[in-house]
Amino acid sequence: MVYGTPEKYLPSELKEKPMAEALSRLKLVDSPPFDFNRIQFRKANGGILAEMDVDSTERFYGFGMQTNTFEQRGMRREIRLNSKVTGNLGLGHASMPFYISSKGYGVLVNTSRYTTFYMASKGKLDERVSKGMASQDGQKIALSTVELYGKKYTPSNEVSILVSGTEGVELYVFAGPQMKDVVQRYNLFSGGGALPPLWGLGFKYRAKATFNEEQVGEITRYFREKNIPCDMLGLEPGWQTTSYPCSFVWNKKNFPDADAFINRINAQGYKLNLWEHAYTHPSSPIFDSIARHAADYTVWSGAVPDFLTQEGQRIFGDYHEANFVKKGVAAFKLDESDGANYELAHREWSFPDIAQFPSGIDGVQMRQVYGHLYNKTLLDLYRKHNKRTIFDVRASYLFASPYATALYSDMYGHGDFVRMIANSGFSGVNWSPELRETSNEADLIRRLQTITMSAHMVVNGWYLDLPPWLQFNIQKNAERKLLPNHVQLEDKARALVNLRMSLLPYLYSAFAKYHFEGLPPFRPLVMDYPADKNVWRIDDQYMMGESILCAPFIDSASTRTIYFPEGTWYDFNTHKKYEGGKAYTVSMSLDEVPMFIKANTILPLAKPEAYITPETVLSVTCHVYGKPTETIRLFEDDSFTHDYTRGAFNWINLTWNGKKGKAERNGNYRGKIYEIKEWKVVAD
Amino acid sequence: MVYGTPEKYLPSELKEKPMAEALSRLKLVDSPPFDFNRIQFRKANGGILAEMDVDSTERFYGFGMQTNTFEQRGMRREIRLNSKVTGNLGLGHASMPFYISSKGYGVLVNTSRYTTFYMASKGKLDERVSKGMASQDGQKIALSTVELYGKKYTPSNEVSILVSGTEGVELYVFAGPQMKDVVQRYNLFSGGGALPPLWGLGFKYRAKATFNEEQVGEITRYFREKNIPCDMLGLEPGWQTTSYPCSFVWNKKNFPDADAFINRINAQGYKLNLWEHAYTHPSSPIFDSIARHAADYTVWSGAVPDFLTQEGQRIFGDYHEANFVKKGVAAFKLDESDGANYELAHREWSFPDIAQFPSGIDGVQMRQVYGHLYNKTLLDLYRKHNKRTIFDVRASYLFASPYATALYSDMYGHGDFVRMIANSGFSGVNWSPELRETSNEADLIRRLQTITMSAHMVVNGWYLDLPPWLQFNIQKNAERKLLPNHVQLEDKARALVNLRMSLLPYLYSAFAKYHFEGLPPFRPLVMDYPADKNVWRIDDQYMMGESILCAPFIDSASTRTIYFPEGTWYDFNTHKKYEGGKAYTVSMSLDEVPMFIKANTILPLAKPEAYITPETVLSVTCHVYGKPTETIRLFEDDSFTHDYTRGAFNWINLTWNGKKGKAERNGNYRGKIYEIKEWKVVAD
Repeated sequence: MVYGTPEKYLPSELKEKPMAEALSRLKLVDSPPFDFNRIQFRKANGGILAEMDVDSTERFYGFGMQTNTFEQRGMRREIRLNSKVTGNLGLGHASMPFYISSKGYGVLVNTSRYTTFYMASKGKLDERVSKGMASQDGQKIALSTVELYGKKYTPSNEVSILVSGTEGVELYVFAGPQMKDVVQRYNLFSGGGALPPLWGLGFKYRAKATFNEEQVGEITRYFREKNIPCDMLGLEPGWQTTSYPCSFVWNKKNFPDADAFINRINAQGYKLNLWEHAYTHPSSPIFDSIARHAADYTVWSGAVPDFLTQEGQRIFGDYHEANFVKKGVAAFKLDESDGANYELAHREWSFPDIAQFPSGIDGVQMRQVYGHLYNKTLLDLYRKHNKRTIFDVRASYLFASPYATALYSDMYGHGDFVRMIANSGFSGVNWSPELRETSNEADLIRRLQTITMSAHMVVNGWYLDLPPWLQFNIQKNAERKLLPNHVQLEDKARALVNLRMSLLPYLYSAFAKYHFEGLPPFRPLVMDYPADKNVWRIDDQYMMGESILCAPFIDSASTRTIYFPEGTWYDFNTHKKYEGGKAYTVSMSLDEVPMFIKANTILPLAKPEAYITPETVLSVTCHVYGKPTETIRLFEDDSFTHDYTRGAFNWINLTWNGKKGKAERNGNYRGKIYEIKEWKVVAD
Repeated sequence: MVYGTPEKYLPSELKEKPMAEALSRLKLVDSPPFDFNRIQFRKANGGILAEMDVDSTERFYGFGMQTNTFEQRGMRREIRLNSKVTGNLGLGHASMPFYISSKGYGVLVNTSRYTTFYMASKGKLDERVSKGMASQDGQKIALSTVELYGKKYTPSNEVSILVSGTEGVELYVFAGPQMKDVVQRYNLFSGGGALPPLWGLGFKYRAKATFNEEQVGEITRYFREKNIPCDMLGLEPGWQTTSYPCSFVWNKKNFPDADAFINRINAQGYKLNLWEHAYTHPSSPIFDSIARHAADYTVWSGAVPDFLTQEGQRIFGDYHEANFVKKGVAAFKLDESDGANYELAHREWSFPDIAQFPSGIDGVQMRQVYGHLYNKTLLDLYRKHNKRTIFDVRASYLFASPYATALYSDMYGHGDFVRMIANSGFSGVNWSPELRETSNEADLIRRLQTITMSAHMVVNGWYLDLPPWLQFNIQKNAERKLLPNHVQLEDKARALVNLRMSLLPYLYSAFAKYHFEGLPPFRPLVMDYPADKNVWRIDDQYMMGESILCAPFIDSASTRTIYFPEGTWYDFNTHKKYEGGKAYTVSMSLDEVPMFIKANTILPLAKPEAYITPETVLSVTCHVYGKPTETIRLFEDDSFTHDYTRGAFNWINLTWNGKKGKAERNGNYRGKIYEIKEWKVVAD
């Protein structure tokens, strides 16, 4: 739907091609999900307002990576890219003008202007008001602001969307019939979900920012010597001569021979990931050329490349290709692309709203899409070289599902991190609830469990000398004082990383479904069980793949309430059985990981490898829960290249006849990354 | 300065007449404070952008009641009325598009649209950048986000002002030569500062929301019996039949005979203050008529009167006049006029940006001025009846200095409260750092000291059964369990309220100077000592009147650093002498109040009265500090009516010849509210 004259520049112009065939395989919807005439447009507040009536029972989800809210009816959402959540405005690393209704449709505003959504939160002055409200003489009088304001707003049956500073607006409506279909349509329309390399689903450790190559070497040897699998090694700002802004030049004091260093790291089986942001220091070799294709304003006095211009992309890309991609750097961590934060101790550092870019767009528009463009510019280099990768990134926006990235944050609430896993399912992005330091042992292990059950498993030691399980206190870590029980904690950490490595076949296949079917690998329960009203507001549990329900224990809790939807569920640790449709109070020791397996499932678990190579063949044991009658499909390809997009892949069909299992390999990929070794009945 | 076509509706249209004669008495400025051609305008982001170069040494202050910032160079300020500060965006109860430069000029944007200021915080990409920044090989690598972002931004010498959603903009520039002159000009241009009644400078207690008339009676008797002065008694939401939204009708269960209750309260010497907000419940007698002059959206399903329409004002005003003003209600507390807060646990409850008002303005514009209009509507009733009053209010905006109001907040940080006293001096508003409950004895007494040294001395017991000095813990207060040392704490509280009553002649005269000269009674040190670079960023000390420096002890501190500007200063408690131009570490017991008297001052202190009546004559002792050579002027009028605006007032000139003092009364007021009883040399 189009009203007025939309901007010259729209986010959809950045989009990959839709996965047309996959879209055509979705359930056919032959009538619009609602009468589009319900949407009324008008000019308002120097922008465009779109309004529509909604049902009184409708619920709303989405708006990208919302941090502290989940079900959004009654909320006002202000869509603005920002590194901190700043109260409850709606800001975030990947705040998006896209919501999904429980009635099974999605509404997306194709804009990068500031957009405000009133989600049935604003009642009109009408008959209902004057007739329906009796005096409340003797009402309970509130005695706290929480009582006063906690849940109070003016409910309505109207959604209003205000796009600021524009002459026109374009709306997309995605059909269902269910929310899951809406999300699949959205992801496939965006170009399908990103399939990381197999190693990208392994474990990543980011080393301290000040480390030199010897100190980095100590860490890489640590993981190998201690038999803790580790696929990815990240370097933080200190690898460059200057990082605020960035030079993109190796700091020779700490890394005298970068080429040799990269080769050494790669030889140990690590995939090297380099931190950077796009704001370019005058001492950088690309400064003079990129400055001609940059914003009129700087960030930290660095040039802000305009990635919407071909030249900006080319200059930045060519340099990175020659100096990093070709030399064996496997991935990047792209920081600071999410605007400023607005916390008290900080100042806004991003380019301003009033910035102008050579491509012709302004600071507001660029701010929403800057991360997306930056991610794409560097990801495209790997695509060109037919190499798969996965980046850590700080910002994303609409239509991002085909980009192999995982969002991370400086924020650190464990509860928020878990909610963001749930919200990521609505957003076409992956979320990395990375572990940094913690205040106690329980919080450490519980967070380690959560990263194990996330899209991207990262321990970020950017200010830690030692991995946090050896010492979680920052100060003592800096003094290299080990915790008295560091051996036990290291064992627990190893067990969790091993568990992650066992889950690779399962996770990799879930990501393949994301690619081919648009089905997010991490989903809130409401997406899989939309009819069960008990899950409508559950934001502290989520589905990982098709068959595993995760229920993280947050903030040192040893007991929590877990709701199980219909069916039967098995505790992954003890195989204890839970009948669904009920909530249970569940206690778990720190040695138990809060995963629950849906009955009648075949769960393929691999023997943990230290890291993944192109030659790796995972030895898989199929764990049988209940009486599976349906086929479970394992995705297989070379896992390092994009050849799968040209048909070079297999699906391995796993079936169970009640007594024994069968694995059938179909497809065009000639190699093999799994050996199905064993079948094991775990529970029946 | 005008650019483009400014809105049909501008805040200046609400303004009182300037105090023309007083303005003419200010220092003559015969050339503009800077070359106005420095201001460049252009269209940008769907609004108007104004930009100008500034000096590299300039500092900026103001933006209304900023909560967590003081000196604003390097900041981005987003002007939006809001009940909570929400990070460091620039939002607040009286966030204003008006800043004051250390170079001695002020810039005001005459708009109620959202406005964003970049205060030399955004550097352009130019020669300086590329030439001036060497590589920082071996730089110190940051290891915390505070190091990374704490003070980092891109300094510049440019101020940019973006007014959103408008076709034109009007700028006012106020001349100095000093910041104090700028503020005086602004306040006089606004109509002069508000002069509260003498009783309005006394002590106010707000009783628990659930109290009935007997319980209120207990509280009013308590103050009289315990000899704790109290002038004002506030009732909270429970006095109405329904308060969210408001009926404006007495709750007969708790107040069976409101007229008798009012008379009884008045007979005890209390001035009764009623809490309300403007959002009108359908059961209210005015609902049907006000609903015809209300926004299209409701707040909490209540009608939102359009106070810009004559009819809206009249209907709301007439009802309040007949039912409250004429019946002896002395003042109002006008709540909830400041938009919603955006805290996590809360939802936006205010009318939306997209609301439309019968007067023709939209929700954005109305939100900035709603409090201002609401305050004015009810204050005008008192003016009509020639009665003085002072309101507690939750929102204010530009040009508000002639309105006798004090802003308060649900926020509660003591440090923020003190900073807001300092910022109030730039803003044409009074600030009430009200005391509610506290967590310990020291915090209780230190906060009591701060309210004693503020524009409006309020203890807000809206959720407390007993005054907080009897029990500061909410739960125990509800159980009426007294603190073991409640008698001692009550003594300390009494001493502070007595001190406040002693200060009345001094404070009242300071407010008279606010009225007649535009000089704020509460000022940051930088306003009085602009040349002293040590005070440029001091936001935890302030001047009260001409001669008292206040330095509150915050968060139970018993020691703090206090900086004294040039001259000599005397500890009010011990008369200990401090030579200015230096910072001192000062310790104070809870019995000492952190006030310091400037040398060569005559400080008139009254014998404390229990409350003020039209017959009150304060018995004044003039305290002589040092060797005063200048005349100190005491303002005198009937203190209950507006007759002073028609010339019925006196100035009493106090002089000291080195041995004895003289008081000379000049003016047209025939009555007397002071008796100068005594002169006392305190320190020399």
